[in-house]
Amino acid sequence: MLGLGVIGAGYWGPKHVRNFVGLGAAMDWLADTDPGRLEAVKANYPHLRTTTDYRELLAAREVDAVVIATPVATHAELAEAALRAGKHVLVEKPLAQSSAAARKLVELADARGLVLMVGHTFLFSPAVQYLRDLIRSGELGEIYYVHSQRLNLGIFQPDINVMWDLAPHDVSILMHLLGLPVTGASAHGRGYVQTGIEDVAQVNLTFGEHVHAMIHVSWLDPNKVRRMTVVGSRKMVVYDDVETLEKIRIFDKGVEPPPVSGFGEFQLSYRYGSITVPYLPSVEPLRAECQHFLQCIETRQLPLTDGWHGLAVVRVLEAAQASLRDSSRFYEVDCTLGPLVLNGTADLDETLEEAKV
Amino acid sequence: MLGLGVIGAGYWGPKHVRNFVGLGAAMDWLADTDPGRLEAVKANYPHLRTTTDYRELLAAREVDAVVIATPVATHAELAEAALRAGKHVLVEKPLAQSSAAARKLVELADARGLVLMVGHTFLFSPAVQYLRDLIRSGELGEIYYVHSQRLNLGIFQPDINVMWDLAPHDVSILMHLLGLPVTGASAHGRGYVQTGIEDVAQVNLTFGEHVHAMIHVSWLDPNKVRRMTVVGSRKMVVYDDVETLEKIRIFDKGVEPPPVSGFGEFQLSYRYGSITVPYLPSVEPLRAECQHFLQCIETRQLPLTDGWHGLAVVRVLEAAQASLRDSSRFYEVDCTLGPLVLNGTADLDETLEEAKV
Amino acid sequence: MLGLGVIGAGYWGPKHVRNFVGLGAAMDWLADTDPGRLEAVKANYPHLRTTTDYRELLAAREVDAVVIATPVATHAELAEAALRAGKHVLVEKPLAQSSAAARKLVELADARGLVLMVGHTFLFSPAVQYLRDLIRSGELGEIYYVHSQRLNLGIFQPDINVMWDLAPHDVSILMHLLGLPVTGASAHGRGYVQTGIEDVAQVNLTFGEHVHAMIHVSWLDPNKVRRMTVVGSRKMVVYDDVETLEKIRIFDKGVEPPPVSGFGEFQLSYRYGSITVPYLPSVEPLRAECQHFLQCIETRQLPLTDGWHGLAVVRVLEAAQASLRDSSRFYEVDCTLGPLVLNGTADLDETLEEAKV
Amino acid sequence: MLGLGVIGAGYWGPKHVRNFVGLGAAMDWLADTDPGRLEAVKANYPHLRTTTDYRELLAAREVDAVVIATPVATHAELAEAALRAGKHVLVEKPLAQSSAAARKLVELADARGLVLMVGHTFLFSPAVQYLRDLIRSGELGEIYYVHSQRLNLGIFQPDINVMWDLAPHDVSILMHLLGLPVTGASAHGRGYVQTGIEDVAQVNLTFGEHVHAMIHVSWLDPNKVRRMTVVGSRKMVVYDDVETLEKIRIFDKGVEPPPVSGFGEFQLSYRYGSITVPYLPSVEPLRAECQHFLQCIETRQLPLTDGWHGLAVVRVLEAAQASLRDSSRFYEVDCTLGPLVLNGTADLDETLEEAKV
Repeated sequence: MLGLGVIGAGYWGPKHVRNFVGLGAAMDWLADTDPGRLEAVKANYPHLRTTTDYRELLAAREVDAVVIATPVATHAELAEAALRAGKHVLVEKPLAQSSAAARKLVELADARGLVLMVGHTFLFSPAVQYLRDLIRSGELGEIYYVHSQRLNLGIFQPDINVMWDLAPHDVSILMHLLGLPVTGASAHGRGYVQTGIEDVAQVNLTFGEHVHAMIHVSWLDPNKVRRMTVVGSRKMVVYDDVETLEKIRIFDKGVEPPPVSGFGEFQLSYRYGSITVPYLPSVEPLRAECQHFLQCIETRQLPLTDGWHGLAVVRVLEAAQASLRDSSRFYEVDCTLGPLVLNGTADLDETLEEAKV
Repeated sequence: MLGLGVIGAGYWGPKHVRNFVGLGAAMDWLADTDPGRLEAVKANYPHLRTTTDYRELLAAREVDAVVIATPVATHAELAEAALRAGKHVLVEKPLAQSSAAARKLVELADARGLVLMVGHTFLFSPAVQYLRDLIRSGELGEIYYVHSQRLNLGIFQPDINVMWDLAPHDVSILMHLLGLPVTGASAHGRGYVQTGIEDVAQVNLTFGEHVHAMIHVSWLDPNKVRRMTVVGSRKMVVYDDVETLEKIRIFDKGVEPPPVSGFGEFQLSYRYGSITVPYLPSVEPLRAECQHFLQCIETRQLPLTDGWHGLAVVRVLEAAQASLRDSSRFYEVDCTLGPLVLNGTADLDETLEEAKV
Repeated sequence: MLGLGVIGAGYWGPKHVRNFVGLGAAMDWLADTDPGRLEAVKANYPHLRTTTDYRELLAAREVDAVVIATPVATHAELAEAALRAGKHVLVEKPLAQSSAAARKLVELADARGLVLMVGHTFLFSPAVQYLRDLIRSGELGEIYYVHSQRLNLGIFQPDINVMWDLAPHDVSILMHLLGLPVTGASAHGRGYVQTGIEDVAQVNLTFGEHVHAMIHVSWLDPNKVRRMTVVGSRKMVVYDDVETLEKIRIFDKGVEPPPVSGFGEFQLSYRYGSITVPYLPSVEPLRAECQHFLQCIETRQLPLTDGWHGLAVVRVLEAAQASLRDSSRFYEVDCTLGPLVLNGTADLDETLEEAKV
Repeated sequence: MLGLGVIGAGYWGPKHVRNFVGLGAAMDWLADTDPGRLEAVKANYPHLRTTTDYRELLAAREVDAVVIATPVATHAELAEAALRAGKHVLVEKPLAQSSAAARKLVELADARGLVLMVGHTFLFSPAVQYLRDLIRSGELGEIYYVHSQRLNLGIFQPDINVMWDLAPHDVSILMHLLGLPVTGASAHGRGYVQTGIEDVAQVNLTFGEHVHAMIHVSWLDPNKVRRMTVVGSRKMVVYDDVETLEKIRIFDKGVEPPPVSGFGEFQLSYRYGSITVPYLPSVEPLRAECQHFLQCIETRQLPLTDGWHGLAVVRVLEAAQASLRDSSRFYEVDCTLGPLVLNGTADLDETLEEAKV
């Protein structure tokens, strides 16, 4: 049985503890600089060994794998230390604050033959998997563009802007859905509440040759919105993650481009068909993610959200950040970075099946 | 009693006929190049005199005022002819295809002492009036930004892009709500169905010194969306025009910026309060618009959506169009163009009261 | 061309005028006791001949058919007079206040060979036609029960209770959907605002052998609700008439009854599948109804909502009213009253097709 | 520190364990006849002592209070055993299957001076507390009636019908909201999937002199509905428990009854005002319930949902069940059963405050 340790007892750490316990892993160690937080988690899991010094956790022989759920600024340093200690690593998103740091981690894990996975949790949700299959099947036709909104009031972060906080989800999901690397980025944003820290931003991305995505993120919106619209030449889909039961709506709607003709007649034909709302099983994505991590360690399979995936996300955000500081100028992005960003989903289907609530 | 003539029997023309008849005006003449359309309207209003030559209508002595509801490309020419014939003019939006042409009309009307009004209908809706009063009252605090979406499938136009088709509404509404001129514009768009004609676009505008608006328009979206979010420092409002009964929702939510302190402690406080959905009377905005036109002719009051207002909208669209063709570069806009763009609403309140369905 | 006359210029009368004009009928006469109302309609239709004495209308030779859109209490008398004058009759629902009076009208029309139709408008809506076809196709399996809610604030009527005001819709729709006569009824209700006039009521009906319907009507509810849930052994449907675009939602959900077994094991299996929202054309049901009336006169086809249909509705309401006054006791209903209550819909499909907006 | 034991490790038992652990109680013992279930819970709480014989739990000296979360049929026997063993008891709803059995428990707890509480969890939700305060404040005016729907697909129970499964919530909530005892009941129901076990039912209740409630419960509905509409003479409220953020909507709508006049003029005036959606804190009601139980033991305060409350609910269901078996005949109910059914909420406000998520 694999031995697990979690570094960070803030928002995500205790959720990882709960899920690994639920999966029957040897969830042994928890580290955090704040003893109060350690105590709070230990109340529910009295067998946990806790420490305020993560090096003690990394030194423990029974720990085979480490989850890093600490503030973004510490991801790179802690992940490196864990890899150097010979541990498999699952690190919360984003993998690092720079692509240079992220790349170093990827190469280190490769060199040591260790699993490095990034917590892009949404890829483990049934809705995203369903949508990916739908897109790959060609049912939507050619994908024209995607529009995504991720809005709510707060949570403001003191050190990163809204784009680094929320857009990693969109970038990761879109790379997975489209199976294409990002080739260009521009961004536009403003900070209203804290000077110099954008709380509203728009990011425009190009995937591959000509699929475009518009991403709108905000910490300053009265409604919680998590809505992605995928517009294809044959059908259109709205994926609304705030909905409990109807996350995916497939619209059999479209518009036919005018046939080439010598007469210049303007004639578009519209198609209005039915809407389908597929049934999706109830799964806690984090549980599927934890399970996938355990499996990848066991089988040495490349994780769906491996280091290359995490690095690609950081690279895109870097380019968007540069644009943000440069009058929204368009920046090219090079994401052709080694192994394929995307892996098969066969195994994941099984994982989702097992993770059903 | 004023004598009315309508040029254009397409989508809007017959609605104008119906409303002027309902208001008890002498709705005498209808012109269109298509005799079939004339006949269709005449079936319901047998007393209408019809003609395929608008000059016959303009020559009619009993016609005091003319409504121009024809394709955009013909607005300027027809409006000029009507003004030169001494008629008051209500022209559908946008006023013209260039600010030069629009300006010429404004000056001509001024010189002749005739009423020139543009059909920016939304300004005559109770929701927009309510929202304007709310913003002016200071209840929302300082306005940070506005985000607006105007999406649906179709209606594609053969000669103008989605921005010229849908964004005039947003520009007009926002000038009215904020009471500020547009000072800068940039735009980004793509044409998927027809080469060279954008069917999806994003427009970023600056109003006055520092209020920003993001406008997202699309002819290629599965849902009909007409949603404007106004984010203030104290409260936030969502105006959803697709809703029948709950068009305005006021969120008593906010985030307090951190007090200046020497300790660098990060401390924002959030406020979550109740939501209020005000009752709004049921009014057909077009009826209020028609009534306002009649009143302005009678009293020589400057219309709420006068020529200057219409000209300002065209000027903003021109700048956005330039940006669209120039890699989304930011363009400055000069809208300080004479009389105040915005007038009082006292009279309008009365108009809306009378126009209740 | 058929000549039409409308008696009653209240809420429905002018709508009939508009639709018959739109259908190209010779819409010649309008009668109402209130000259002000006549004038208001005539403003839009100057060619209309008006009278405050309906007998003048009935005496007009050019009038072949009459629409009766007056208060319920006058339906029977006016319809009888019109039939005796040799006119075809379309009367607003309910046909009469008693089944005796309704029966008399049905027999009179039969004897004279005239068309008698009742304005159960919902049967001419695409949603009801779609639902009927769905039920008839067997796709829902065996129909277990139907639950219907028709709620809103107002409109209170001075002389009839909420059941007579709103439940005729449900009874008519359900007879049409199920293709079964009502065999039993009970009702429960209370009057809160006006003593002795129920403003909230529940009606329980049995259709045929064992399909049950629960109908909840109210003039005292804050929301406008028009929702019918049809629960079948294989699928379930919600028909929500307040929705603009998604009136019908088909749920591929069900529960399998336990197989008979000797072990008494409790084992039900649930099925959760996708939801489908069919596209429905945009039709004004009243226009389809008017068109159907004209066709039936021309072809002497029995109308979908003929006198027998209207009589059945009245008979059911009578029984429910008796129950209301008798401690909600169950009353048997005999609706086997001559010709089949339901006719084919082949012609109607065509009518709906033509009536598309 | 109080020692706790939980009997029953099915759906609710583990939730009680989690909450008492979270509240810092000495959560020591868990009993269930199924060793597999015990093991599953113990995996998360390794310090728990488990047993398949509840008598061992009751014999444990360190156990001061017992939670009974077993099938309904065993409530009475287990609660009695626990009280006889000198333990305070929190039993899941309904308290017992007959009012005789429930009464016996109430009297036993009284005689021994032990706390007996019933798990009517909804009374510990912020929405119900808010609504209760609103009603008590008089802001809704005179309460006319309440309509409640509690619908979904499943969960079918093998031994009780849908009314005993779902209606206890409504009865308990309504007694609390209205502060009135039930004085009469009738019910109507049908079993479609399992012969003899109703899966759809309507219950009509009278509270005090003249407040009426209609309760519609179903295990056979495609949508999950938890909606209660309270109609008062001044305002109306919809409490929708399926909504995440907008559970309570207050409609400032009403209709004024006609003034008595000698002229018989029909004149009702309607009032349409704004809708208010109050902000409600996020609380897990079960946590507040557990906390309240601990407090009542400590202070010997009568619980909000004490034995008398639980007994009253059972008495109402008994009467409704009798009506169900007796052609929906109206049955009188006597709920004047000793101490007041309802207690103050001052303490609860504090409890809810502390239980905020």
